Amino acid sequence: MSLVVVGTVAFDAIETPFGKTDKIIGGAATYSGISASYFTKDVKLVSVVGEDFPMEMIERFKTLGMSTEGLQVKKGQKTFFWSGRYHVDMNTRDTMDTQLNVLLDFDPVIPSSYQDCDFLMLSNLMPQLQKKVIERMQKRPRLVVMDTMNFWMETQMDALLETIKLVDVLTVNDSEARQLTNEYSLVKAAQKILAMGPKYLIIKKGEHGALLFNKEQVFFAPALPLEDVFDPTGAGDTFAGGFIGYLAQTRDISFDNMKRGIIYASAMASFCVEKFGTERVLELKQSEIDERVQQFVNLVQFDIELV
Amino acid sequence: MSLVVVGTVAFDAIETPFGKTDKIIGGAATYSGISASYFTKDVKLVSVVGEDFPMEMIERFKTLGMSTEGLQVKKGQKTFFWSGRYHVDMNTRDTMDTQLNVLLDFDPVIPSSYQDCDFLMLSNLMPQLQKKVIERMQKRPRLVVMDTMNFWMETQMDALLETIKLVDVLTVNDSEARQLTNEYSLVKAAQKILAMGPKYLIIKKGEHGALLFNKEQVFFAPALPLEDVFDPTGAGDTFAGGFIGYLAQTRDISFDNMKRGIIYASAMASFCVEKFGTERVLELKQSEIDERVQQFVNLVQFDIELV
Repeated sequence: MSLVVVGTVAFDAIETPFGKTDKIIGGAATYSGISASYFTKDVKLVSVVGEDFPMEMIERFKTLGMSTEGLQVKKGQKTFFWSGRYHVDMNTRDTMDTQLNVLLDFDPVIPSSYQDCDFLMLSNLMPQLQKKVIERMQKRPRLVVMDTMNFWMETQMDALLETIKLVDVLTVNDSEARQLTNEYSLVKAAQKILAMGPKYLIIKKGEHGALLFNKEQVFFAPALPLEDVFDPTGAGDTFAGGFIGYLAQTRDISFDNMKRGIIYASAMASFCVEKFGTERVLELKQSEIDERVQQFVNLVQFDIELV
Repeated sequence: MSLVVVGTVAFDAIETPFGKTDKIIGGAATYSGISASYFTKDVKLVSVVGEDFPMEMIERFKTLGMSTEGLQVKKGQKTFFWSGRYHVDMNTRDTMDTQLNVLLDFDPVIPSSYQDCDFLMLSNLMPQLQKKVIERMQKRPRLVVMDTMNFWMETQMDALLETIKLVDVLTVNDSEARQLTNEYSLVKAAQKILAMGPKYLIIKKGEHGALLFNKEQVFFAPALPLEDVFDPTGAGDTFAGGFIGYLAQTRDISFDNMKRGIIYASAMASFCVEKFGTERVLELKQSEIDERVQQFVNLVQFDIELV
């Protein structure tokens, strides 16, 4: 089933304890779109870049089965640029530079060929723009998944809450869940967020796994214990893209299938952190994904007979 | 099968963001022993207290099915006392006061009725004393589980390594695993620790669950997402006691059964943190434990068919 992915397509410059990069391709929609493309060949991108963005990458998106009709290329303008440095624990980072460039007056256009979409991934972006995309869909998609970040909680909480109200699934990390609700307990935070509108909430805990909540149930998926995390950039977006991609592929939005989706999402994220940027997620084989999912099964499955 | 539990029986004074206690009963062997007693009625305690320790509590141990023949009561001396204050995140704490008292010249005695034991739990204690207990067992138990803490890594690393070499299962928390090996990656830390002697390693991650390693396999058990953690004191000891108690009850020390043991251990620990000290773990019903284990099953089980 068709999946529209909205968000940033960007240049990143990343520094981790393992090394640093020049300008490389990044952006939330880039990671989410690439990740989803392993599950469905009907991914439609909505984003904006400047004329400095390499055409080869846009061709690469197409090769992966992504439509780029909704990817605006702005003549005479520059692509969004972000630069960050990770701390030794790899869980925290400092933003060194942010150049919004084309993002400053980004007005998302939904081509008519996108209008029949069943799944909508709102990757991290200004909440007003995420809302605009929902409003510009002539038909409500079966499932709208939204990712966001602490920055919008600090600068545009009202707009953020307006958008959160409209989505089916919200994904945030643990500190964002706490920030959004002023609750330290994630169980209490989850119930408060579910009262804001979404029917499902995914709390991403990085190396500590992810939690899926609805009002009655909770599911936990671990992260794979890795020898090294090389670069966490894009792991959350890769996770979200794998999640919604799996749901689109299987056409099943039940809680039980969302559990499976989170396992696939975690597998995709575990690849992302193995190399800088999109390098690893651009080169995956289906057999590698299956093998990784099997590792997750082995990691958590046990049999207890309760009578 | 019979299980000997060695460690401290103590007084604690605890302060958490939720409140503070006067002197209450604590100690690693107390928590481990009580927890194990829900699985086997053949728990034998080795420890030492002063004459200030309440006889009612010793009677309570017996009611739970624990032998206290190896619990020395020192006339004219005082029981080990520890006092600590937890930070808001409940993951870190400051020690406010430590009075070793009877622990200063504790010489563990293994009564002859303990000599046939199949399972030995070395709860946190000076590593030389843990080693002495192993040496004083006329017959090697089927399984020796050892818990320890960062304090011994800072003050008695050589003695600690001598003892670690002799045990089958070591349990430490994540920061201790890193401290013991100078490896940030828990996967690398685990392999280094397994090269030190133990066949199995359990890394406890508190609210983030626990990992079980042997040289070939890894298993992850989550912690139950709780509305509130009231007092984490003793959770690790309760975990260890539940783990070895379950193995003693089921008489099965395979990796697959250790997985089940860790789920029961996690369930026991999840009760411990609900109230101050031993209050909650002293009053459990079997039906509550079964229900809690079922919650763990529901939390992590999913079905993925890989072809």
